Amino acid sequence: MALEPLRHGLVSLLVLLLLLVHAASAARARDLHLEMVTTSAATARAVPSCASWRLGVETNNIRDWYSIPAECRGYVRDYMYGDLFRQDCAVVAREAAAYAEGLELGGDGKEVWVFDVDDTTLSNLPYYADTGFGAEPYNATYFDEYVANATAPPLPEVLQLYETLLSLGIKVVFITGRHDYEKEPTIKNLRSAGYHTWDKLVLKPSSLGSSVVPYKSGERQKLVDAGYRIVGNMGDQWSDLIGAPEGDRTFKVPDPMYYVG
Amino acid sequence: MALEPLRHGLVSLLVLLLLLVHAASAARARDLHLEMVTTSAATARAVPSCASWRLGVETNNIRDWYSIPAECRGYVRDYMYGDLFRQDCAVVAREAAAYAEGLELGGDGKEVWVFDVDDTTLSNLPYYADTGFGAEPYNATYFDEYVANATAPPLPEVLQLYETLLSLGIKVVFITGRHDYEKEPTIKNLRSAGYHTWDKLVLKPSSLGSSVVPYKSGERQKLVDAGYRIVGNMGDQWSDLIGAPEGDRTFKVPDPMYYVG
Repeated sequence: MALEPLRHGLVSLLVLLLLLVHAASAARARDLHLEMVTTSAATARAVPSCASWRLGVETNNIRDWYSIPAECRGYVRDYMYGDLFRQDCAVVAREAAAYAEGLELGGDGKEVWVFDVDDTTLSNLPYYADTGFGAEPYNATYFDEYVANATAPPLPEVLQLYETLLSLGIKVVFITGRHDYEKEPTIKNLRSAGYHTWDKLVLKPSSLGSSVVPYKSGERQKLVDAGYRIVGNMGDQWSDLIGAPEGDRTFKVPDPMYYVG
Repeated sequence: MALEPLRHGLVSLLVLLLLLVHAASAARARDLHLEMVTTSAATARAVPSCASWRLGVETNNIRDWYSIPAECRGYVRDYMYGDLFRQDCAVVAREAAAYAEGLELGGDGKEVWVFDVDDTTLSNLPYYADTGFGAEPYNATYFDEYVANATAPPLPEVLQLYETLLSLGIKVVFITGRHDYEKEPTIKNLRSAGYHTWDKLVLKPSSLGSSVVPYKSGERQKLVDAGYRIVGNMGDQWSDLIGAPEGDRTFKVPDPMYYVG
Protein backbone atom coordinates (compact mmCIF):
# COMPACT_ATOMS: atom_id res chain seq x y z
CA MET A 1 0.00 0.00 0.00
CA ALA A 2 3.04 2.28 -0.28
CA LEU A 3 1.66 3.49 -3.62
CA GLU A 4 -1.60 4.74 -2.10
CA PRO A 5 -0.57 8.40 -1.62
CA LEU A 6 0.74 8.51 -5.20
CA ARG A 7 -2.47 6.91 -6.49
CA HIS A 8 -4.62 9.38 -4.59
CA GLY A 9 -2.60 12.31 -5.94
CA LEU A 10 -2.98 10.99 -9.48
CA VAL A 11 -6.73 10.51 -9.05
CA SER A 12 -7.13 14.05 -7.68
CA LEU A 13 -5.21 15.52 -10.62
CA LEU A 14 -7.24 13.53 -13.16
CA VAL A 15 -10.54 14.43 -11.53
CA LEU A 16 -9.58 18.11 -11.53
CA LEU A 17 -8.65 18.02 -15.22
CA LEU A 18 -11.83 16.14 -16.14
CA LEU A 19 -13.94 18.60 -14.18
CA LEU A 20 -12.37 21.50 -16.08
CA VAL A 21 -13.05 19.82 -19.43
CA HIS A 22 -16.55 18.87 -18.27
CA ALA A 23 -17.31 22.47 -17.27
CA ALA A 24 -16.53 23.60 -20.82
CA SER A 25 -18.77 20.86 -22.27
CA ALA A 26 -21.57 21.68 -19.83
CA ALA A 27 -21.56 25.30 -20.97
CA ARG A 28 -21.99 24.10 -24.58
CA ALA A 29 -24.75 21.66 -23.52
CA ARG A 30 -26.63 24.52 -21.92
CA ASP A 31 -26.43 26.52 -25.15
CA LEU A 32 -27.85 23.53 -27.02
CA HIS A 33 -30.58 23.16 -24.42
CA LEU A 34 -31.62 26.78 -24.86
CA GLU A 35 -31.79 26.33 -28.61
CA MET A 36 -33.97 23.24 -28.19
CA VAL A 37 -36.36 25.06 -25.90
CA THR A 38 -36.91 27.82 -28.43
CA THR A 39 -37.53 25.47 -31.35
CA SER A 40 -39.41 22.52 -29.88
CA ALA A 41 -43.16 22.10 -29.64
CA ALA A 42 -44.82 22.01 -26.23
CA THR A 43 -45.45 18.29 -26.64
CA ALA A 44 -41.77 17.57 -27.19
CA ARG A 45 -40.27 19.47 -24.29
CA ALA A 46 -36.53 19.19 -23.96
CA VAL A 47 -35.40 16.56 -21.49
CA PRO A 48 -32.77 17.61 -18.93
CA SER A 49 -31.42 14.05 -18.98
CA CYS A 50 -32.90 10.73 -20.06
CA ALA A 51 -32.05 9.28 -16.65
CA SER A 52 -34.13 12.01 -14.98
CA TRP A 53 -36.94 11.46 -17.45
CA ARG A 54 -36.90 7.74 -16.59
CA LEU A 55 -36.98 8.47 -12.86
CA GLY A 56 -39.89 10.84 -13.46
CA VAL A 57 -41.78 8.07 -15.23
CA GLU A 58 -41.00 5.42 -12.61
CA THR A 59 -42.13 7.67 -9.75
CA ASN A 60 -45.38 8.57 -11.55
CA ASN A 61 -44.35 12.23 -11.70
CA ILE A 62 -44.55 12.19 -15.51
CA ARG A 63 -47.96 11.05 -16.74
CA ASP A 64 -50.10 10.84 -19.86
CA TRP A 65 -47.24 10.54 -22.33
CA TYR A 66 -47.61 8.83 -25.69
CA SER A 67 -44.06 8.01 -26.69
CA ILE A 68 -40.62 8.25 -25.16
CA PRO A 69 -38.66 11.46 -25.88
CA ALA A 70 -37.06 11.06 -29.31
CA GLU A 71 -33.62 11.88 -27.90
CA CYS A 72 -33.93 9.05 -25.35
CA ARG A 73 -34.38 6.22 -27.87
CA GLY A 74 -30.75 5.08 -27.62
CA TYR A 75 -30.78 5.54 -23.86
CA VAL A 76 -33.89 3.35 -23.42
CA ARG A 77 -32.47 0.70 -25.78
CA ASP A 78 -29.21 0.57 -23.82
CA TYR A 79 -31.10 0.51 -20.51
CA MET A 80 -33.40 -2.34 -21.55
CA TYR A 81 -30.56 -4.46 -22.96
CA GLY A 82 -28.06 -3.57 -20.25
CA ASP A 83 -27.31 -4.66 -16.70
CA LEU A 84 -29.22 -1.83 -15.05
CA PHE A 85 -32.73 -2.92 -16.09
CA ARG A 86 -32.04 -6.43 -14.84
CA GLN A 87 -30.57 -5.11 -11.59
CA ASP A 88 -33.59 -2.82 -11.18
CA CYS A 89 -35.87 -5.84 -11.67
CA ALA A 90 -33.77 -7.88 -9.22
CA VAL A 91 -34.22 -5.24 -6.51
CA VAL A 92 -38.01 -5.24 -6.92
CA ALA A 93 -38.19 -9.04 -6.89
CA ARG A 94 -35.83 -9.29 -3.93
CA GLU A 95 -37.83 -6.81 -1.85
CA ALA A 96 -41.08 -8.56 -2.79
CA ALA A 97 -39.69 -12.00 -1.86
CA ALA A 98 -38.31 -10.72 1.46
CA TYR A 99 -41.68 -9.15 2.23
CA ALA A 100 -43.59 -12.33 1.30
CA GLU A 101 -41.25 -14.53 3.31
CA GLY A 102 -41.87 -12.32 6.34
CA LEU A 103 -45.66 -12.63 6.17
CA GLU A 104 -47.58 -14.64 8.72
CA LEU A 105 -50.03 -16.54 6.56
CA GLY A 106 -53.43 -17.53 7.88
CA GLY A 107 -53.24 -21.11 6.63
CA ASP A 108 -56.68 -20.82 5.02
CA GLY A 109 -55.31 -20.42 1.47
CA LYS A 110 -56.93 -17.01 1.10
CA GLU A 111 -53.78 -14.94 0.51
CA VAL A 112 -53.30 -13.96 -3.13
CA TRP A 113 -50.67 -12.08 -5.08
CA VAL A 114 -51.90 -10.08 -8.08
CA PHE A 115 -49.63 -9.90 -11.11
CA ASP A 116 -50.05 -7.85 -14.24
CA VAL A 117 -49.06 -9.79 -17.38
CA ASP A 118 -47.48 -7.54 -20.05
CA ASP A 119 -43.98 -6.39 -19.06
CA THR A 120 -44.46 -7.76 -15.57
CA THR A 121 -44.71 -11.53 -15.88
CA LEU A 122 -44.07 -11.61 -19.65
CA SER A 123 -41.67 -9.30 -21.47
CA ASN A 124 -42.72 -7.45 -24.61
CA LEU A 125 -39.19 -6.28 -25.30
CA PRO A 126 -39.12 -8.20 -28.62
CA TYR A 127 -42.10 -6.12 -29.81
CA TYR A 128 -40.68 -2.84 -28.51
CA ALA A 129 -37.24 -3.51 -29.95
CA ASP A 130 -38.93 -3.57 -33.36
CA THR A 131 -40.79 -0.32 -32.75
CA GLY A 132 -38.13 2.07 -31.45
CA PHE A 133 -38.36 1.10 -27.74
CA GLY A 134 -41.46 3.24 -27.38
CA ALA A 135 -40.29 6.03 -29.70
CA GLU A 136 -42.58 4.95 -32.56
CA PRO A 137 -46.39 5.03 -32.34
CA TYR A 138 -48.11 1.95 -30.90
CA ASN A 139 -48.83 -0.52 -33.68
CA ALA A 140 -51.99 -2.40 -32.64
CA THR A 141 -51.90 -4.82 -35.58
CA TYR A 142 -48.31 -5.82 -34.99
CA PHE A 143 -48.82 -6.06 -31.21
CA ASP A 144 -51.86 -8.33 -31.70
CA GLU A 145 -49.68 -10.55 -33.88
CA TYR A 146 -47.01 -10.55 -31.18
CA VAL A 147 -49.56 -11.63 -28.55
CA ALA A 148 -51.04 -14.29 -30.88
CA ASN A 149 -47.58 -15.79 -31.40
CA ALA A 150 -47.42 -16.53 -27.65
CA THR A 151 -43.64 -16.30 -27.68
CA ALA A 152 -43.04 -13.55 -25.10
CA PRO A 153 -40.26 -14.53 -22.69
CA PRO A 154 -40.71 -14.18 -18.93
CA LEU A 155 -39.05 -11.46 -16.88
CA PRO A 156 -36.67 -13.91 -15.16
CA GLU A 157 -36.65 -12.10 -11.80
CA VAL A 158 -40.46 -12.05 -11.69
CA LEU A 159 -40.66 -15.74 -12.66
CA GLN A 160 -38.34 -16.52 -9.76
CA LEU A 161 -40.54 -14.47 -7.40
CA TYR A 162 -43.59 -16.36 -8.68
CA GLU A 163 -41.95 -19.67 -7.72
CA THR A 164 -41.11 -18.29 -4.27
CA LEU A 165 -44.71 -17.15 -3.70
CA LEU A 166 -46.14 -20.53 -4.71
CA SER A 167 -43.68 -22.34 -2.43
CA LEU A 168 -44.87 -20.15 0.45
CA GLY A 169 -48.50 -21.10 -0.23
CA ILE A 170 -49.56 -17.74 -1.67
CA LYS A 171 -52.00 -18.04 -4.57
CA VAL A 172 -51.38 -16.24 -7.84
CA VAL A 173 -53.93 -14.19 -9.77
CA PHE A 174 -53.19 -12.54 -13.10
CA ILE A 175 -55.18 -9.41 -13.95
CA THR A 176 -54.27 -8.24 -17.44
CA GLY A 177 -55.26 -5.49 -19.82
CA ARG A 178 -55.20 -8.11 -22.58
CA HIS A 179 -58.65 -8.76 -24.04
CA ASP A 180 -60.96 -11.74 -23.65
CA TYR A 181 -60.27 -12.88 -27.19
CA GLU A 182 -56.55 -13.18 -26.37
CA LYS A 183 -57.19 -15.76 -23.64
CA GLU A 184 -55.83 -18.83 -25.44
CA PRO A 185 -52.49 -17.40 -26.60
CA THR A 186 -52.07 -15.77 -23.17
CA ILE A 187 -52.53 -19.11 -21.39
CA LYS A 188 -50.21 -20.80 -23.86
CA ASN A 189 -47.57 -18.08 -23.44
CA LEU A 190 -47.74 -17.99 -19.64
CA ARG A 191 -47.26 -21.78 -19.54
CA SER A 192 -44.40 -21.83 -22.07
CA ALA A 193 -42.69 -19.01 -20.15
CA GLY A 194 -42.77 -21.07 -16.95
CA TYR A 195 -45.92 -19.85 -15.17
CA HIS A 196 -47.39 -23.33 -14.82
CA THR A 197 -50.26 -22.69 -12.43
CA TRP A 198 -52.53 -19.91 -11.16
CA ASP A 199 -55.84 -19.48 -9.40
CA LYS A 200 -57.37 -16.94 -11.73
CA LEU A 201 -56.56 -15.26 -15.03
CA VAL A 202 -58.70 -12.16 -15.54
CA LEU A 203 -58.77 -10.62 -19.02
CA LYS A 204 -60.36 -7.32 -19.94
CA PRO A 205 -63.80 -7.45 -21.56
CA SER A 206 -63.57 -5.79 -24.96
CA SER A 207 -66.52 -3.61 -24.00
CA LEU A 208 -64.55 -1.72 -21.33
CA GLY A 209 -62.98 1.71 -21.89
CA SER A 210 -59.31 2.42 -22.29
CA SER A 211 -58.39 3.37 -18.70
CA VAL A 212 -57.39 0.28 -16.80
CA VAL A 213 -57.64 1.74 -13.28
CA PRO A 214 -61.41 1.15 -12.76
CA TYR A 215 -61.17 -2.28 -14.43
CA LYS A 216 -58.19 -3.50 -12.42
CA SER A 217 -59.26 -2.01 -9.07
CA GLY A 218 -62.77 -3.41 -9.68
CA GLU A 219 -61.34 -6.89 -10.21
CA ARG A 220 -59.27 -6.56 -7.03
CA GLN A 221 -62.44 -5.55 -5.19
CA LYS A 222 -64.14 -8.73 -6.45
CA LEU A 223 -61.27 -10.77 -4.99
CA VAL A 224 -61.63 -9.04 -1.63
CA ASP A 225 -65.41 -9.49 -1.73
CA ALA A 226 -64.84 -13.21 -2.35
CA GLY A 227 -62.84 -13.43 0.86
CA TYR A 228 -59.32 -13.20 -0.52
CA ARG A 229 -56.63 -11.07 1.08
CA ILE A 230 -54.41 -9.36 -1.53
CA VAL A 231 -51.03 -9.44 0.16
CA GLY A 232 -49.11 -8.17 -2.86
CA ASN A 233 -49.81 -6.41 -6.14
CA MET A 234 -47.17 -6.08 -8.85
CA GLY A 235 -47.19 -4.30 -12.20
CA ASP A 236 -45.08 -2.22 -14.55
CA GLN A 237 -47.65 0.63 -14.73
CA TRP A 238 -48.93 2.77 -11.89
CA SER A 239 -52.42 2.12 -13.29
CA ASP A 240 -51.88 -1.53 -12.29
CA LEU A 241 -51.31 -0.49 -8.69
CA ILE A 242 -53.46 2.50 -7.76
CA GLY A 243 -57.19 2.53 -6.99
CA ALA A 244 -58.66 0.90 -3.87
CA PRO A 245 -58.19 -1.84 -2.91
CA GLU A 246 -54.50 -1.60 -3.79
CA GLY A 247 -53.49 -4.68 -1.83
CA ASP A 248 -51.37 -4.72 1.33
CA ARG A 249 -48.28 -3.73 -0.60
CA THR A 250 -47.57 -2.71 -4.19
CA PHE A 251 -44.44 -3.27 -6.27
CA LYS A 252 -43.56 -1.26 -9.37
CA VAL A 253 -41.60 -3.14 -12.03
CA PRO A 254 -39.47 -0.77 -14.14
CA ASP A 255 -40.77 0.09 -17.61
CA PRO A 256 -39.56 3.18 -19.47
CA MET A 257 -41.12 2.15 -22.82
CA TYR A 258 -44.76 3.13 -22.56
CA TYR A 259 -47.51 4.63 -20.41
CA VAL A 260 -50.95 3.20 -19.69
CA GLY A 261 -53.27 5.44 -17.70
CA MET B 1 -12.82 25.38 -32.18
CA ALA B 2 -9.40 24.42 -33.64
CA LEU B 3 -8.56 23.01 -30.22
CA GLU B 4 -11.45 20.48 -30.35
CA PRO B 5 -9.41 17.45 -31.60
CA LEU B 6 -6.76 18.14 -28.97
CA ARG B 7 -9.45 18.48 -26.30
CA HIS B 8 -11.07 15.19 -27.34
CA GLY B 9 -7.73 13.41 -27.27
CA LEU B 10 -7.05 14.75 -23.81
CA VAL B 11 -10.48 13.69 -22.59
CA SER B 12 -10.04 10.18 -23.99
CA LEU B 13 -6.66 9.83 -22.29
CA LEU B 14 -8.01 11.08 -18.98
CA VAL B 15 -11.06 8.81 -19.16
CA LEU B 16 -8.84 5.82 -19.91
CA LEU B 17 -6.54 6.59 -16.98
CA LEU B 18 -9.47 7.14 -14.65
CA LEU B 19 -11.07 3.88 -15.73
CA LEU B 20 -7.85 2.01 -14.95
CA VAL B 21 -7.63 3.60 -11.52
CA HIS B 22 -11.33 2.98 -10.97
CA ALA B 23 -10.98 -0.70 -11.96
CA ALA B 24 -8.35 -1.13 -9.27
CA SER B 25 -10.60 0.58 -6.71
CA ALA B 26 -13.62 -1.45 -7.81
CA ALA B 27 -11.72 -4.69 -7.33
CA ARG B 28 -10.92 -3.59 -3.78
CA ALA B 29 -14.54 -2.50 -3.27
CA ARG B 30 -15.73 -5.95 -4.33
CA ASP B 31 -13.37 -7.60 -1.86
CA LEU B 32 -14.72 -5.34 0.82
CA HIS B 33 -18.27 -6.07 -0.30
CA LEU B 34 -17.78 -9.84 -0.08
CA GLU B 35 -16.36 -9.40 3.39
CA MET B 36 -19.38 -7.34 4.35
CA VAL B 37 -21.81 -9.94 3.06
CA THR B 38 -20.25 -12.63 5.21
CA THR B 39 -20.27 -10.49 8.32
CA SER B 40 -23.36 -8.32 7.96
CA ALA B 41 -26.79 -8.82 9.48
CA ALA B 42 -29.86 -9.58 7.35
CA THR B 43 -30.83 -5.91 7.63
CA ALA B 44 -27.80 -4.91 5.54
CA ARG B 45 -28.39 -7.06 2.46
CA ALA B 46 -25.99 -6.73 -0.45
CA VAL B 47 -27.02 -4.21 -3.11
CA PRO B 48 -26.92 -5.18 -6.81
CA SER B 49 -26.15 -1.57 -7.71
CA CYS B 50 -26.59 1.70 -5.87
CA ALA B 51 -28.53 3.12 -8.84
CA SER B 52 -31.02 0.23 -8.57
CA TRP B 53 -31.23 0.68 -4.82
CA ARG B 54 -32.03 4.37 -5.36
CA LEU B 55 -34.73 3.54 -7.93
CA GLY B 56 -36.19 1.02 -5.48
CA VAL B 57 -36.38 3.72 -2.83
CA GLU B 58 -37.87 6.34 -5.16
CA THR B 59 -40.59 3.96 -6.38
CA ASN B 60 -41.49 2.92 -2.81
CA ASN B 61 -40.44 -0.67 -3.53
CA ILE B 62 -37.86 -0.55 -0.74
CA ARG B 63 -39.41 0.44 2.58
CA ASP B 64 -38.68 0.60 6.29
CA TRP B 65 -34.94 1.14 5.97
CA TYR B 66 -32.90 2.89 8.63
CA SER B 67 -29.77 3.97 6.80
CA ILE B 68 -28.45 3.89 3.27
CA PRO B 69 -26.38 0.81 2.30
CA ALA B 70 -22.85 1.41 3.56
CA GLU B 71 -21.40 0.74 0.11
CA CYS B 72 -23.62 3.49 -1.41
CA ARG B 73 -22.29 6.33 0.74
CA GLY B 74 -20.01 7.68 -2.00
CA TYR B 75 -22.70 7.13 -4.62
CA VAL B 76 -25.30 9.11 -2.67
CA ARG B 77 -22.78 11.89 -1.96
CA ASP B 78 -21.92 12.16 -5.67
CA TYR B 79 -25.61 12.04 -6.62
CA MET B 80 -26.63 14.78 -4.19
CA TYR B 81 -23.76 17.08 -5.18
CA GLY B 82 -23.91 16.27 -8.88
CA ASP B 83 -26.00 17.31 -11.86
CA LEU B 84 -28.36 14.33 -11.71
CA PHE B 85 -30.10 15.24 -8.46
CA ARG B 86 -30.71 18.77 -9.73
CA GLN B 87 -31.97 17.44 -13.07
CA ASP B 88 -34.23 14.97 -11.26
CA CYS B 89 -35.63 17.87 -9.21
CA ALA B 90 -36.05 19.95 -12.37
CA VAL B 91 -38.15 17.23 -14.00
CA VAL B 92 -40.50 17.01 -11.00
CA ALA B 93 -40.86 20.80 -10.79
CA ARG B 94 -41.36 21.13 -14.55
CA GLU B 95 -44.10 18.49 -14.62
CA ALA B 96 -45.78 20.06 -11.60
CA ALA B 97 -45.69 23.54 -13.15
CA ALA B 98 -47.03 22.28 -16.50
CA TYR B 99 -49.84 20.48 -14.67
CA ALA B 100 -50.69 23.56 -12.56
CA GLU B 101 -50.63 25.85 -15.58
CA GLY B 102 -53.11 23.53 -17.30
CA LEU B 103 -55.64 23.61 -14.45
CA GLU B 104 -58.91 25.47 -14.80
CA LEU B 105 -59.17 27.25 -11.49
CA GLY B 106 -62.54 28.00 -9.92
CA GLY B 107 -61.73 31.64 -9.11
CA ASP B 108 -62.93 31.16 -5.53
CA GLY B 109 -59.41 30.94 -4.06
CA LYS B 110 -60.06 27.45 -2.74
CA GLU B 111 -57.34 25.59 -4.63
CA VAL B 112 -54.34 24.72 -2.47
CA TRP B 113 -51.00 23.05 -3.03
CA VAL B 114 -49.59 21.06 -0.12
CA PHE B 115 -45.83 21.09 0.35
CA ASP B 116 -43.76 19.11 2.79
CA VAL B 117 -40.91 21.18 4.30
CA ASP B 118 -37.78 19.09 4.99
CA ASP B 119 -35.98 18.14 1.75
CA THR B 120 -38.92 19.38 -0.31
CA THR B 121 -39.07 23.14 0.20
CA LEU B 122 -35.93 23.35 2.35
CA SER B 123 -32.82 21.23 1.83
CA ASN B 124 -31.20 19.43 4.73
CA LEU B 125 -28.19 18.47 2.66
CA PRO B 126 -25.86 20.48 4.96
CA TYR B 127 -26.96 18.27 7.89
CA TYR B 128 -26.73 15.03 5.88
CA ALA B 129 -23.33 15.94 4.44
CA ASP B 130 -22.06 16.01 8.04
CA THR B 131 -23.62 12.63 8.88
CA GLY B 132 -22.56 10.38 6.00
CA PHE B 133 -25.43 11.22 3.62
CA GLY B 134 -27.73 8.90 5.52
CA ALA B 135 -25.09 6.24 6.26
CA GLU B 136 -24.69 7.27 9.89
CA PRO B 137 -27.48 6.98 12.49
CA TYR B 138 -29.89 9.90 12.75
CA ASN B 139 -28.53 12.40 15.28
CA ALA B 140 -31.59 14.05 16.84
CA THR B 141 -29.55 16.54 18.89
CA TYR B 142 -27.55 17.73 15.91
CA PHE B 143 -30.62 17.85 13.66
CA ASP B 144 -32.51 19.94 16.24
CA GLU B 145 -29.56 22.35 16.26
CA TYR B 146 -29.64 22.43 12.45
CA VAL B 147 -33.36 23.29 12.48
CA ALA B 148 -32.87 25.89 15.22
CA ASN B 149 -30.18 27.63 13.15
CA ALA B 150 -32.82 28.27 10.44
CA THR B 151 -30.14 28.26 7.75
CA ALA B 152 -31.43 25.48 5.45
CA PRO B 153 -31.28 26.58 1.82
CA PRO B 154 -34.27 26.11 -0.49
CA LEU B 155 -34.42 23.43 -3.18
CA PRO B 156 -34.15 25.96 -6.03
CA GLU B 157 -36.46 24.07 -8.42
CA VAL B 158 -39.18 23.80 -5.76
CA LEU B 159 -38.82 27.48 -4.85
CA GLN B 160 -39.35 28.33 -8.52
CA LEU B 161 -42.45 26.10 -8.65
CA TYR B 162 -43.76 27.82 -5.50
CA GLU B 163 -43.51 31.21 -7.27
CA THR B 164 -45.32 29.80 -10.31
CA LEU B 165 -48.15 28.42 -8.16
CA LEU B 166 -48.61 31.73 -6.33
CA SER B 167 -48.64 33.61 -9.63
CA LEU B 168 -51.43 31.30 -10.84
CA GLY B 169 -53.50 32.05 -7.73
CA ILE B 170 -53.02 28.67 -6.07
CA LYS B 171 -52.64 28.91 -2.29
CA VAL B 172 -49.75 27.23 -0.52
CA VAL B 173 -50.01 25.09 2.61
CA PHE B 174 -47.01 23.58 4.37
CA ILE B 175 -47.60 20.36 6.30
CA THR B 176 -44.41 19.35 8.05
CA GLY B 177 -43.23 16.60 10.37
CA ARG B 178 -41.35 19.30 12.30
CA HIS B 179 -42.73 19.79 15.80
CA ASP B 180 -44.79 22.62 17.25
CA TYR B 181 -41.83 23.89 19.25
CA GLU B 182 -39.87 24.38 16.01
CA LYS B 183 -42.43 26.84 14.64
CA GLU B 184 -40.37 30.02 15.01
CA PRO B 185 -37.12 28.81 13.35
CA THR B 186 -39.21 27.13 10.64
CA ILE B 187 -41.01 30.39 9.81
CA LYS B 188 -37.71 32.27 9.91
CA ASN B 189 -36.03 29.70 7.66
CA LEU B 190 -38.88 29.51 5.13
CA ARG B 191 -38.81 33.31 4.81
CA SER B 192 -35.02 33.60 4.52
CA ALA B 193 -35.06 30.82 1.90
CA GLY B 194 -37.53 32.80 -0.23
CA TYR B 195 -40.92 31.34 0.77
CA HIS B 196 -42.38 34.72 1.65
CA THR B 197 -46.06 33.84 2.04
CA TRP B 198 -48.37 30.91 2.72
CA ASP B 199 -51.91 30.24 3.86
CA LYS B 200 -51.15 27.68 6.51
CA LEU B 201 -48.12 26.15 8.19
CA VAL B 202 -49.06 22.94 10.00
CA LEU B 203 -46.52 21.49 12.43
CA LYS B 204 -46.78 18.13 14.13
CA PRO B 205 -48.01 18.11 17.73
CA SER B 206 -45.31 16.57 19.91
CA SER B 207 -47.91 14.17 21.32
CA LEU B 208 -48.35 12.32 18.00
CA GLY B 209 -46.65 9.01 17.18
CA SER B 210 -43.78 8.51 14.80
CA SER B 211 -45.67 7.53 11.62
CA VAL B 212 -46.51 10.64 9.65
CA VAL B 213 -49.15 9.08 7.34
CA PRO B 214 -52.15 9.43 9.71
CA TYR B 215 -51.00 12.91 10.78
CA LYS B 216 -50.45 14.24 7.24
CA SER B 217 -53.51 12.63 5.66
CA GLY B 218 -55.58 13.82 8.64
CA GLU B 219 -54.41 17.40 8.06
CA ARG B 220 -55.25 17.10 4.36
CA GLN B 221 -58.72 15.86 5.34
CA LYS B 222 -59.15 18.98 7.51
CA LEU B 223 -58.34 21.14 4.48
CA VAL B 224 -60.91 19.30 2.36
CA ASP B 225 -63.48 19.53 5.17
CA ALA B 226 -62.86 23.29 5.28
CA GLY B 227 -63.80 23.52 1.59
CA TYR B 228 -60.34 23.54 0.02
CA ARG B 229 -59.50 21.55 -3.07
CA ILE B 230 -55.99 20.03 -2.88
CA VAL B 231 -54.84 20.26 -6.50
CA GLY B 232 -51.27 19.17 -5.80
CA ASN B 233 -49.32 17.47 -3.04
CA MET B 234 -45.52 17.38 -3.07
CA GLY B 235 -43.04 15.69 -0.77
CA ASP B 236 -39.76 13.78 -0.69
CA GLN B 237 -41.24 10.81 1.20
CA TRP B 238 -44.06 8.52 0.09
CA SER B 239 -45.50 9.00 3.57
CA ASP B 240 -46.05 12.65 2.60
CA LEU B 241 -48.19 11.55 -0.34
CA ILE B 242 -50.17 8.41 0.48
CA GLY B 243 -53.32 8.15 2.62
CA ALA B 244 -56.66 9.60 1.53
CA PRO B 245 -57.18 12.34 0.59
CA GLU B 246 -53.96 12.34 -1.45
CA GLY B 247 -54.86 15.43 -3.47
CA ASP B 248 -55.66 15.49 -7.18
CA ARG B 249 -52.07 14.74 -8.07
CA THR B 250 -48.94 13.87 -6.10
CA PHE B 251 -45.31 14.67 -6.88
CA LYS B 252 -42.36 12.78 -5.42
CA VAL B 253 -39.20 14.85 -4.92
CA PRO B 254 -36.07 12.65 -5.03
CA ASP B 255 -34.42 11.82 -1.70
CA PRO B 256 -32.08 8.85 -1.34
CA MET B 257 -30.81 9.88 2.12
CA TYR B 258 -33.47 8.68 4.54
CA TYR B 259 -36.84 6.97 4.96
CA VAL B 260 -39.82 8.18 6.97
CA GLY B 261 -42.73 5.75 7.22
